[in-house]
Amino acid sequence: MPHSHIVSSFDDELNNLRQKIIKMANLVETQFKEAELSLINNDLDLAKKVKITDDIVDEMEREIERLSIEMIALRSPLADDLREIISAIKISNALERIGDYAKNLSKRVAVLSKTDKIISTSIISQMIDVISTMNRDIIDAYIHSNSEKAISVWTRDLVVDNLYNSFFRELLTYMMENPQYITPATHLLFIAKNIERAGDHLTNIAELVYFIVEGKAIEIVRPKGDESS
Amino acid sequence: MPHSHIVSSFDDELNNLRQKIIKMANLVETQFKEAELSLINNDLDLAKKVKITDDIVDEMEREIERLSIEMIALRSPLADDLREIISAIKISNALERIGDYAKNLSKRVAVLSKTDKIISTSIISQMIDVISTMNRDIIDAYIHSNSEKAISVWTRDLVVDNLYNSFFRELLTYMMENPQYITPATHLLFIAKNIERAGDHLTNIAELVYFIVEGKAIEIVRPKGDESS
Repeated sequence: MPHSHIVSSFDDELNNLRQKIIKMANLVETQFKEAELSLINNDLDLAKKVKITDDIVDEMEREIERLSIEMIALRSPLADDLREIISAIKISNALERIGDYAKNLSKRVAVLSKTDKIISTSIISQMIDVISTMNRDIIDAYIHSNSEKAISVWTRDLVVDNLYNSFFRELLTYMMENPQYITPATHLLFIAKNIERAGDHLTNIAELVYFIVEGKAIEIVRPKGDESS
Repeated sequence: MPHSHIVSSFDDELNNLRQKIIKMANLVETQFKEAELSLINNDLDLAKKVKITDDIVDEMEREIERLSIEMIALRSPLADDLREIISAIKISNALERIGDYAKNLSKRVAVLSKTDKIISTSIISQMIDVISTMNRDIIDAYIHSNSEKAISVWTRDLVVDNLYNSFFRELLTYMMENPQYITPATHLLFIAKNIERAGDHLTNIAELVYFIVEGKAIEIVRPKGDESS
């Protein structure tokens, strides 16, 4: 086997692709953790770091897509492998969007740091905790081809939606109480909505992981909790 | 050529894929038009129709993905064709999200119909006009492989962002003026933000079209106008 050291196998390439997705998911989790800390501590430097990490996340998405297309073109993978590679493109696409929401949160820290810190952001921290665990669990389900765990992440989005709904109501009462709270409350509302959307993207990833493992779509109806509209 | 009538050519399949994307883009434009009319006229039946159309749009996305994967698996297309097919998946993905925003707008009509119609929604109509023209133009650029037109759509997103920014300020003043306006203003704020996001997705499609035509990414820096964060 003269080429065994220079020509990687298809499985090696698939494994490499998976490793990159894991790395990307970890980076996105860090983005949210740092965005949260920058909000709590008015830390504008940390907020800037979230933006820098986002550039790396964006670059990783492009790399995963490039690698995937290369694999499809050179390896002509069969149905199951092809679906996994296309799913890898879609998972990295969803992770990139989740990272964008963390970046958007960090961009609002500068405006919020100039306003009175009357409104507690503890629900935002709770929401970030939930989506971070969802993120970790869905990647774990992806690595271990665990469709049951994928379903558990998928249903957990309801928790994020419920937290969003109570925060939404709370913010409205603040706005009605004092016009001074309107600007910070509006920014916090967008932050909460973005985390809720990040949760939606994580459920999309859960659907993709289920599909990779089971070869079919999830057939139960997902509970949906955002009732603010 | 005994099979010429039953085996379609690769070009026919590619053309079929393009036709489906055109149809999907037209449906999404209709969704926004009808969502806008339902908002202006408090028309809850029309608002429901937007939801029904959204199910068709969702189904079209799945069909385009299925067709694309089938083409890749059976035809093993070369680099340029492969990139176009992967781009078709991504364009339909973006269109599906744009349709979601129209659906979200229509879901807010019921709540808004119960509030005083003090705040003018003319900026929302203007924003929808701009993104509808962007949508039509980007599909035209896609059909005619016109990368210059793709760039023109891409830069026009700034108009949407500027409209959003002035509406954002206007809504804040309403909220400060009278607590009664807070609930409708909050919903209008989300509607405007969603249209602004639809514009972002259209610029993503413009980037994909440019990439299909020119084989490389757009190299100029896009003007970005959403300064509300």
